Amino acid sequence: MTPTPTVGIVGAGQLARMMIEAATPLDIPIRLLAASPNDAAARISPNVDIGSPKSSEDLIAFGKHCDIVTFDHELVDLKSIRELEQTGQHVYPSANALLHAQDKLHQRTVFTSAGFPIPDFLPVKSTEEIIAFAETHGWPVVVKAQRDGYDGRGVWILENRSDADSLIANATTNNVSLLVEQFIPIDRELAGLIARRPSGEFELYPIVETVQRNGICHEVIAPAAIPESISKRAIDLTIAVAEQADVVGNMALELFLVGDELLINEIATRPHNSGHFSIEGCHTSQFENHLRAILDWPLGSASLRSGAVVMANLLGRGENRLEDGVPAALKATSPGIHPHLYGKTSRLGRKIGHVTATGDDLEETRTRATVAAETLMTATANTIGAPS
Amino acid sequence: MTPTPTVGIVGAGQLARMMIEAATPLDIPIRLLAASPNDAAARISPNVDIGSPKSSEDLIAFGKHCDIVTFDHELVDLKSIRELEQTGQHVYPSANALLHAQDKLHQRTVFTSAGFPIPDFLPVKSTEEIIAFAETHGWPVVVKAQRDGYDGRGVWILENRSDADSLIANATTNNVSLLVEQFIPIDRELAGLIARRPSGEFELYPIVETVQRNGICHEVIAPAAIPESISKRAIDLTIAVAEQADVVGNMALELFLVGDELLINEIATRPHNSGHFSIEGCHTSQFENHLRAILDWPLGSASLRSGAVVMANLLGRGENRLEDGVPAALKATSPGIHPHLYGKTSRLGRKIGHVTATGDDLEETRTRATVAAETLMTATANTIGAPS
Repeated sequence: MTPTPTVGIVGAGQLARMMIEAATPLDIPIRLLAASPNDAAARISPNVDIGSPKSSEDLIAFGKHCDIVTFDHELVDLKSIRELEQTGQHVYPSANALLHAQDKLHQRTVFTSAGFPIPDFLPVKSTEEIIAFAETHGWPVVVKAQRDGYDGRGVWILENRSDADSLIANATTNNVSLLVEQFIPIDRELAGLIARRPSGEFELYPIVETVQRNGICHEVIAPAAIPESISKRAIDLTIAVAEQADVVGNMALELFLVGDELLINEIATRPHNSGHFSIEGCHTSQFENHLRAILDWPLGSASLRSGAVVMANLLGRGENRLEDGVPAALKATSPGIHPHLYGKTSRLGRKIGHVTATGDDLEETRTRATVAAETLMTATANTIGAPS
Repeated sequence: MTPTPTVGIVGAGQLARMMIEAATPLDIPIRLLAASPNDAAARISPNVDIGSPKSSEDLIAFGKHCDIVTFDHELVDLKSIRELEQTGQHVYPSANALLHAQDKLHQRTVFTSAGFPIPDFLPVKSTEEIIAFAETHGWPVVVKAQRDGYDGRGVWILENRSDADSLIANATTNNVSLLVEQFIPIDRELAGLIARRPSGEFELYPIVETVQRNGICHEVIAPAAIPESISKRAIDLTIAVAEQADVVGNMALELFLVGDELLINEIATRPHNSGHFSIEGCHTSQFENHLRAILDWPLGSASLRSGAVVMANLLGRGENRLEDGVPAALKATSPGIHPHLYGKTSRLGRKIGHVTATGDDLEETRTRATVAAETLMTATANTIGAPS
């Protein structure tokens, strides 16, 4: 008789919190490495180590309390993760798979070698290199920090030499490595989600459309209203990338759709915002399948439970006040609306929760999701996550 | 700005555990009064007071850490709960409502006064009183302990004077108060579930059929396959009983169906085994609506998410061994099966978890639920809840 292994999660944000929600019904023991006891997941867990995901010492001490280590985010020190692996610790995703998600230059270089479709790119250190790239591909160009960007941070659209000059000056000051990419006139953004066991056995979620504004995901629509042929290619690409990166656990592949062409934008080697719809939307959520995959347990069905599922993020409104708070917001939600509040302090643009609407008709479901999200954001900007 | 009130739960079994699961997405702070840190819910909560639900001192100390107090079970000291109410504490259900669920004689007396249909009954202290009752109503008769019975415990079916003699002797020795009831030739057992706010506003779940064996619930079938007219009467009765008991929070009404007649068996003034199907089966689970009701928040829709939902309990098999454990059991589950393991040590007949199947066709869904439950019970009898 083997007791269920303890899963350690590095980081204690909303992804760790939703992993805990998925772990409880399966009685999987979870331990967290949190920066603070007030982190979203740390607030609901009895098993919290406080430490830094960038400290080798903290990671190795944490690893001793767990049987398997996984991640809430990629902002970890890879060298320490490799050291952790060398102690014999099971780490999923592995340091090699994490590198794909953490280092945009590495990711693009590997994807190019593997023949995957991506926008043209070039690592750059000077204005002249950006100008030369723009002369080939045309203005504007997209410049990205090679590491540590998320939710639109670390991404700049440059229109001309002057923009390039100031960005290079800033990056040099801050010691940020950059790459330049061609600007893609995106028709839609899609995402492929897959959960994969060490053996390579996998479960695929339906291809979704992600609606982004200013680089931040606002809505996820499942299934994406796209032709079958495009869905099929997005699925094949998701499987191929997961195999190439040898991901164990959940992987999200962000895709650009341009006409009939699919291009890879990014990958994340963990549960991802584009998969939150799966909690109520699918028979098995991305969080549950991530845990089952890293435990090398049989995966659950990722098929949809209703014809349409739409997730809308709740983004902090900073200064908003409210009178009625959560109860009033709940009153405005309708059947088939599921609110998720992360227990985080509201800040302008910060993801503090999400709502999921399930239904039959995509447009009607989307309307319910966005109306509920708007009501919750207005009513709860200052109550969600008020420290208790 | 008012932060969300802290809900204290007296008791830390699987009902408290599933309340925590429902509380997290709404960021409702939960605190437990647990007998042991190894209790099912205590194992997953960072906010646990250790103490006895029968100690006035422990209850009042616990109340000081909470804004609202609710219950995992009725095995509490009512006098202490009244004292807690007298400190100004919000307690839902109230001591008066709890008394209905705790004391079968009180319950039957009140229901008779209110004109609700129940089996004929009589409090008894002697064999002669049982015999006299049986002479009017015929053998067999059902004798029940007035308090503390659950899952078939505290219920005896007597065939003759000899049975009555030995039961009376036993009850006298153990100081157990009894009542006798007519034996009802039950066609089906049904349950009505309702969540009710302090104002009386309520949300009704569909009437379900509960399949009992030896007094223990094995399956719950939603919706019950009964004529509309019976469903309507069961609904009306559920609403009327909740109003009469002035329940705040969830209430389950167990009903006997005999021909076309409905008789009340028991009530529970909290989330109940007959409502576990609602976690995946309804838009809002009984656990979420219980919390919303006691917080006096707007309730969520209790309507079904699919045509058929069947829950099957996982009952401990005691001595069983297994080779593959949870992973093998998960492998045998099919799409639309949701396992819930309570983290409890397996004992013969003990409720250690449940599975819920969702689908369109009732019979097909029921088959999937029972096959999954059988597989899990066989495979996991000794792993579910192995202390970690």
